[in-house]
Amino acid sequence: MNSPTPAGGRSVEARLDEIESRTEIASLVAGFCEGLDRRDPERFGALWYEDAEFLAPGGRGNFYGLEQIRGVQVAIDTSWARTFHLTTNLVIKFENPDRATGRADCLAIAQSAADGRTTYIEATYFDIFERRDGEWKIASRTTERWFISASFDLPPNA
Amino acid sequence: MNSPTPAGGRSVEARLDEIESRTEIASLVAGFCEGLDRRDPERFGALWYEDAEFLAPGGRGNFYGLEQIRGVQVAIDTSWARTFHLTTNLVIKFENPDRATGRADCLAIAQSAADGRTTYIEATYFDIFERRDGEWKIASRTTERWFISASFDLPPNA
Amino acid sequence: MNSPTPAGGRSVEARLDEIESRTEIASLVAGFCEGLDRRDPERFGALWYEDAEFLAPGGRGNFYGLEQIRGVQVAIDTSWARTFHLTTNLVIKFENPDRATGRADCLAIAQSAADGRTTYIEATYFDIFERRDGEWKIASRTTERWFISASFDLPPNA
Repeated sequence: MNSPTPAGGRSVEARLDEIESRTEIASLVAGFCEGLDRRDPERFGALWYEDAEFLAPGGRGNFYGLEQIRGVQVAIDTSWARTFHLTTNLVIKFENPDRATGRADCLAIAQSAADGRTTYIEATYFDIFERRDGEWKIASRTTERWFISASFDLPPNA
Repeated sequence: MNSPTPAGGRSVEARLDEIESRTEIASLVAGFCEGLDRRDPERFGALWYEDAEFLAPGGRGNFYGLEQIRGVQVAIDTSWARTFHLTTNLVIKFENPDRATGRADCLAIAQSAADGRTTYIEATYFDIFERRDGEWKIASRTTERWFISASFDLPPNA
Repeated sequence: MNSPTPAGGRSVEARLDEIESRTEIASLVAGFCEGLDRRDPERFGALWYEDAEFLAPGGRGNFYGLEQIRGVQVAIDTSWARTFHLTTNLVIKFENPDRATGRADCLAIAQSAADGRTTYIEATYFDIFERRDGEWKIASRTTERWFISASFDLPPNA
């Protein structure tokens, strides 16, 4: 490291690295929405480690490994004609330079494939992100459903 | 400061400090949502200075000091069975290294404790954040209600 | 540049510059919402270059140059009594230090000027940001409508 060390103790390099890691992690959180909403298995799959887990407590299933997690996307594609995920309130905390936890809230607007009716789902994501071989990916995501509306008739008028 | 000073004038240390302060301030904005929605008085209370103010123009009251602000959380807990706050569009401007203003929009989805009906509330927050003794907290939040829907029957179906 | 160069190759100055540029770009994205929702032509107009473009595929029109883009704001003000834009999932990628692309999702809640009914619109923005003479502005925004609800009766009860 060529960077000077400020009075606070951490080097400039370490501080820049953490800041840049935050941006990369935020891109994963956004990419989850994009991958699902655009039905893009390549984008979605690239967010996760091969040994990642995606946990959905409350009887909705726990999925271990990328292959099972890809199956979740297929299931969502089958259940919903369209989804739209908006993630906010992201807070990232570093356990060490290569591992961080995340917490974010998400509003999902989803239109049923079966009857065209719309449901609003509010959820919170509890994540573990890891950097391996220089790249950040999702090691674990636990999605806690917090509120789900009754479906209602709100068809697109476009 | 050991940091070099770039041509622009501000030192690397000052620039890193501001960037890291932005992250801490964004965590306060997210923490407001988490503290309210999870009904966590410890999380909520830790966001504010003892002499903070929480202002809600339009006849909804002005609250001075942490004790009164804690009362707002109690009132929200009483009125609403559940709330879900999504804050976006955060813009932070620094007046000096230890004081910044913030502006953010928030969509709150709230289910009435009285009748179970749901209301959508859109608000904008105008904040003042200060760093005292090395820690950022909210010195002042003014919440401007911008749009409130009629309540409607949207019970949870989970 | 006085900044040291870390092992990774990019100088501290270049890395700080990119991080600070991200903040400025995010402010433009938030400013679009503020400018429209607050009906503030000065705020809205300052986001764009004179030769910017604002494209809305699907028959809604393409607007070239600031004067035409200002006309979009006037049209929105005429059609809607109120709008409320929430932008999330922002991902910024740099092509070079002075040019970046952005992708963001937006939920807009809009109340009709004609009948007071409310419509929820979900859109994705694909942007090009440029820095000229030291200042970041929008060079191009393409807004892709992704979902638009039927209007429904959700009058304000405030």
